[in-house]
Amino acid sequence: MRLRNVPRKEEIMKNSPFLIPDGKVYCGKWHALFQNDHPIHLEIGMGKGQFLIAMAIANPTINFVGIEKYDSVVARALEKIPKDLKNLYVIRGNAMGIDSMFQEEIDTIYLNFSDPWPKKRHALRRLTSPLFLSKYASLFKNDFHLYQRTDNRNLFEYSLLCFSEAGYTLKDISLDFHKDRDVPFTTEFETKFSQMGCPIYYVEVTKKKSSSK
Amino acid sequence: MRLRNVPRKEEIMKNSPFLIPDGKVYCGKWHALFQNDHPIHLEIGMGKGQFLIAMAIANPTINFVGIEKYDSVVARALEKIPKDLKNLYVIRGNAMGIDSMFQEEIDTIYLNFSDPWPKKRHALRRLTSPLFLSKYASLFKNDFHLYQRTDNRNLFEYSLLCFSEAGYTLKDISLDFHKDRDVPFTTEFETKFSQMGCPIYYVEVTKKKSSSK
Repeated sequence: MRLRNVPRKEEIMKNSPFLIPDGKVYCGKWHALFQNDHPIHLEIGMGKGQFLIAMAIANPTINFVGIEKYDSVVARALEKIPKDLKNLYVIRGNAMGIDSMFQEEIDTIYLNFSDPWPKKRHALRRLTSPLFLSKYASLFKNDFHLYQRTDNRNLFEYSLLCFSEAGYTLKDISLDFHKDRDVPFTTEFETKFSQMGCPIYYVEVTKKKSSSK
Repeated sequence: MRLRNVPRKEEIMKNSPFLIPDGKVYCGKWHALFQNDHPIHLEIGMGKGQFLIAMAIANPTINFVGIEKYDSVVARALEKIPKDLKNLYVIRGNAMGIDSMFQEEIDTIYLNFSDPWPKKRHALRRLTSPLFLSKYASLFKNDFHLYQRTDNRNLFEYSLLCFSEAGYTLKDISLDFHKDRDVPFTTEFETKFSQMGCPIYYVEVTKKKSSSK
């Protein structure tokens, strides 16, 4: 994510009805916040929100929550949300604290073009590391569904190994997502990389709650 | 595999000490044939044998068996085997009958550049289909080890889904094997495709015997 400072970021964040400055406040209370029992889908590292906002508009009976750590990026996303959207909130926060923000409330996680953290000593910071997969286990209500997209081959290989080790089952995979499929909702990164001809890697994995480690 | 007729194939096969014309004859008796208790590694679809013969020469304490269905290809492989090699046999036969050729005698299977059988109605003929994975379950002695290499993206995606569904665990994966690794033993296909710049997909999967379906 290219970080360009947004001078009005503080003001945008302060005035947006979609911002949750501290995700922990709603832990266990997300359905109350949304005022319905619709499933909640979470995008960790939502960036400027292109994917998540389009998903929320297209799927009014699903609730969406995005997490993003950089204020300027959060501000850009908040500006793009249509004023009357009822099924989307944005948490300004670090994914490391995800397990204190949700408790058995999530149905689906999206990891789109996550930071690959290429150095081995940073491996646990990758959003598909065993550390994060164990955090996710406490977020899910029933069966887990996790969708990952990335242009980073090494991150994708690492993720597949971690999913397998943690007992996830592959449901769908593509090693050239945009060549194979009609992809209606894309991220900012994805549009750019795909146009450059880079293969986009895609995987859907699931896990039964009962067999969680 | 490009099939070029070898006119002397009958004669070559008849005179080779390495050919097993009918694999079923040694079912349950492979260790007796090799006259040792070394692990037995199997390559299904060995082609002209470049990979398997090099592996056998380099690993004298492992027994190798290759299966190949086309006489001309079998003949080409047989011609290349050094006369004094003690740890390699070649079965002329169809992989579909594999479960009547071995019974809990195999430690490792190699699937190198297998026929992708691209049509959906032929999917069960792919060597990583649920049909074949269930056949393999009866071949393995203890823990399963299966190594696959291919240049065919769709076959590789299909294989990963089948491995996961059958309860295999990914141990190693590369989506560009020759870019990442030093690969000492290659097949005829692999050398050619890799030099053309095509990515080679590689995976190692395992399964505990006790949890076999």
